[in-house]
Amino acid sequence: MIIAGVMTGTSMDGIDVALCSIEPASEGDRQTIALLASVTAPYPAELRWLIDRALQGQASMEELSDLPYFLARAYADVLMEMPNWNHVQAVGVHGQTLWHHPPVSTWQAVSGTALAEYLGVPVVYDFRASDVAHGGQGAPLVPRFDHTFLGSPEEHRAALNIGGMANLTLLPADTSINQVRAFDTGPGNVLINALCEKTFGKRYDAGGSIARSGTIIDQAFSELRTHPFFFDDPPKSTGREVFGPAMAEALYRRYAHPSVPSEDLVTTLTELTAWSVGDHLRRYQPDCQRVLVAGGGVHNTYLMERLAVHCGSAVVESTTSVGIDPDAKEAMCFAWLAWRTLHRLPGNVPSVTGARREVILGSVAGQPVVL
Amino acid sequence: MIIAGVMTGTSMDGIDVALCSIEPASEGDRQTIALLASVTAPYPAELRWLIDRALQGQASMEELSDLPYFLARAYADVLMEMPNWNHVQAVGVHGQTLWHHPPVSTWQAVSGTALAEYLGVPVVYDFRASDVAHGGQGAPLVPRFDHTFLGSPEEHRAALNIGGMANLTLLPADTSINQVRAFDTGPGNVLINALCEKTFGKRYDAGGSIARSGTIIDQAFSELRTHPFFFDDPPKSTGREVFGPAMAEALYRRYAHPSVPSEDLVTTLTELTAWSVGDHLRRYQPDCQRVLVAGGGVHNTYLMERLAVHCGSAVVESTTSVGIDPDAKEAMCFAWLAWRTLHRLPGNVPSVTGARREVILGSVAGQPVVL
Repeated sequence: MIIAGVMTGTSMDGIDVALCSIEPASEGDRQTIALLASVTAPYPAELRWLIDRALQGQASMEELSDLPYFLARAYADVLMEMPNWNHVQAVGVHGQTLWHHPPVSTWQAVSGTALAEYLGVPVVYDFRASDVAHGGQGAPLVPRFDHTFLGSPEEHRAALNIGGMANLTLLPADTSINQVRAFDTGPGNVLINALCEKTFGKRYDAGGSIARSGTIIDQAFSELRTHPFFFDDPPKSTGREVFGPAMAEALYRRYAHPSVPSEDLVTTLTELTAWSVGDHLRRYQPDCQRVLVAGGGVHNTYLMERLAVHCGSAVVESTTSVGIDPDAKEAMCFAWLAWRTLHRLPGNVPSVTGARREVILGSVAGQPVVL
Repeated sequence: MIIAGVMTGTSMDGIDVALCSIEPASEGDRQTIALLASVTAPYPAELRWLIDRALQGQASMEELSDLPYFLARAYADVLMEMPNWNHVQAVGVHGQTLWHHPPVSTWQAVSGTALAEYLGVPVVYDFRASDVAHGGQGAPLVPRFDHTFLGSPEEHRAALNIGGMANLTLLPADTSINQVRAFDTGPGNVLINALCEKTFGKRYDAGGSIARSGTIIDQAFSELRTHPFFFDDPPKSTGREVFGPAMAEALYRRYAHPSVPSEDLVTTLTELTAWSVGDHLRRYQPDCQRVLVAGGGVHNTYLMERLAVHCGSAVVESTTSVGIDPDAKEAMCFAWLAWRTLHRLPGNVPSVTGARREVILGSVAGQPVVL
């Protein structure tokens, strides 16, 4: 079955689309997935502006009414330009998170109903709501994907995603789905990016070259690693309100000085990300043999080197090594979650989200595929 | 198949629920429907307050995130108290309209995804979005129900709903679905209710007793019937921004006087509703033989009498005469539209909504019924 997954994250880096071929497991619950094509398309400028207004609580009711339709239109435009679009049988779409208030509610904007009509293909959407309805946090949803596609029967592994935040899924050898643990370890790229923007006018540290040319500011690093978030036990999650532009701004004010090269702050924040991942791994999965990394951070080779240093004896490498494109992983996850919903299989991991039970995720719009 | 329909209108009179038994047509597309139970439950006070804030554009993003879940919870509480709830196989839910901006968007708040989980039964919802996605107004959706259940092969009929506004579906004998016309004729109860509230402290004119005891104010009636809305050709629709509390307030200021009994204003506005329905019938279906009335207005016996006067030779009577409970009609309609969606049958009427084509309406959450 050919399914497209669509992911748009809070950082609004782009509209990620992955076309996947997904086949049932010959036995057990481990499907096979192959990425046929993927793309990251820019948001239309007016759409990004509208989402920003909504996130800031400044959108009118009319704008909030229109936004899910504009998102559906933007997704449809990207999807229908994909190679082999005419072979796609269903779409799984995450939507744009406008508010996340678990366990009361969560709000991923997109008119799945309209999108299915624009595309003429069934659309699965509103995945997180099903978990929230059963008392869960509605997030993270990637750990089941990690368990299925990154786990191993023989090797102790962890899946690491480095987006704005960094999160870790612990996958001991042959672990069962109800024993999976996953949590945020702290900042991923968010602080690094904010400093690069401020001091070098660059959106991110391409390849880690800035960080590589600097030196750790010992005092700053010592202070940063005392942040209480790092010492909380999982499950835990964090966001830009804790590790974000405001923290980057405060660090800049405190440590920027004519005698301190700007590179040094970037190096220090890169070290913080690598150290915090490694420290959690040391505390919660000391026997980990392999850390499989996805997300934008995988392209920061300096960060990958520092991760290897902080992760002890574990091999640190891109998910490419196990056949998963690290840039397409989240979009692939939502293609696969849609496949599961259409096959009436659960998609959440209660031990991770806190939901009372496993549940089939989301709603289905449009003519359902006959299975 | 037993399906529950849930309707909550903009006037927030209550949560209308209808449990229906629906059977396929032995031939053609005319199903049979039987009402098993119905109820109108009050809105929880905090929910009504929250909806009011949202409608006034004063709700925060967190409140707008929570609202669809609170609505789902309120609907679930009413549904699960219904007699024979354990026999219900699916639910069709309209949701609470927060904004209606066709042909760009329409916003009926309810988390269908969460509701399906709360109930453990599949939920069809977001009906209007499918029509809007195909360029339609997303409204009205009742005319297909009218055509199926109120039409006749031999008799020229019209279906009239008197809620806040009054709307008419023209059903000439043996008319086909693609020739159905439907439109608003103007105010239904909205002006009458507003005046009753203001002058008598009553939410509505029970049985029409206030209007019956008054006299038409000729000057006011003459002026009111010159409103340009009445002279537009269909399709057309109107709302509280045209005929609503503001107009009632203006009328009160202009005509209230110690020498004029307050009843007279109520009588005049009742006459306006009856006249405007009759005038449209005269212009667009002069050979109509029977007007079948549903909605709250059917209980205003004085209004029903005045309608009979203004509708010429047509018989004016409650839909009860053809086996449809006039108070449950809209909720029954959404039960039936859900049935159609689950059977992959279209629910809109393009000649009424302006959509480019017939379309299967809504999204489906929860384990689908095996048909």
